Amino acid sequence: MKILGRHILAEIHGCDFQILNNVRKVEEIMVNAALDAGAEVREVVFHKFSPQGVSGVVVISESHLAIHTWPELGYAAVDVFTCGDKVNPWDACNYLTERFGAKHMNASEIKRGMVQDTMEKEAVNL
Amino acid sequence: MKILGRHILAEIHGCDFQILNNVRKVEEIMVNAALDAGAEVREVVFHKFSPQGVSGVVVISESHLAIHTWPELGYAAVDVFTCGDKVNPWDACNYLTERFGAKHMNASEIKRGMVQDTMEKEAVNL
Repeated sequence: MKILGRHILAEIHGCDFQILNNVRKVEEIMVNAALDAGAEVREVVFHKFSPQGVSGVVVISESHLAIHTWPELGYAAVDVFTCGDKVNPWDACNYLTERFGAKHMNASEIKRGMVQDTMEKEAVNL
Repeated sequence: MKILGRHILAEIHGCDFQILNNVRKVEEIMVNAALDAGAEVREVVFHKFSPQGVSGVVVISESHLAIHTWPELGYAAVDVFTCGDKVNPWDACNYLTERFGAKHMNASEIKRGMVQDTMEKEAVNL
């Protein structure tokens, strides 16, 4: 068996209010987290909510980074999904934690797409 | 304690190759999954990979739906994140499973943003 991807769900607490509430700043940090981890950025979409909060996604060749922020709680819900061996999703999580000025980060890694090696080989031959 | 969101990671296997490899079809099904579950769609971004595969995200007021497809394996990695009580993320997962003609769906729900009730009340008063 092999896995196709690694999906990290990160709970980032104690973040800077001003950063989490600034959609352009959050977007910049998320894109740079992807680039810093060695990912190839394909699409970027961010949205600012009223009165506060940001949601956004960076689609990368290797899958995606997504974020939802609650600035008033100093909290960001992040997930980083990567496929292949080129990009380490933990690099992006650690980058975000640092740039958000966070006090705590708790994260779990979930293996995605468990397939048989032979299954993938057959698929390639289709 | 209360939670801010529910995040479902769904492994959807045995899907229709033609659907998973058609970026416009996957986008349409993802947007309709959001709408069918009662979500408010904010941003939609999809990307087609060569030679095959689709990645895409629907940002909703209640968080997001994301997908990455491996048509050659009949596999789609889906995650649905919703906040609040209005939208049930399982409705979206079940909708996708049906529309992809899938044989199997295995999913886990992860609670996101566990905060103290008092913490949220204070934040509202900021």
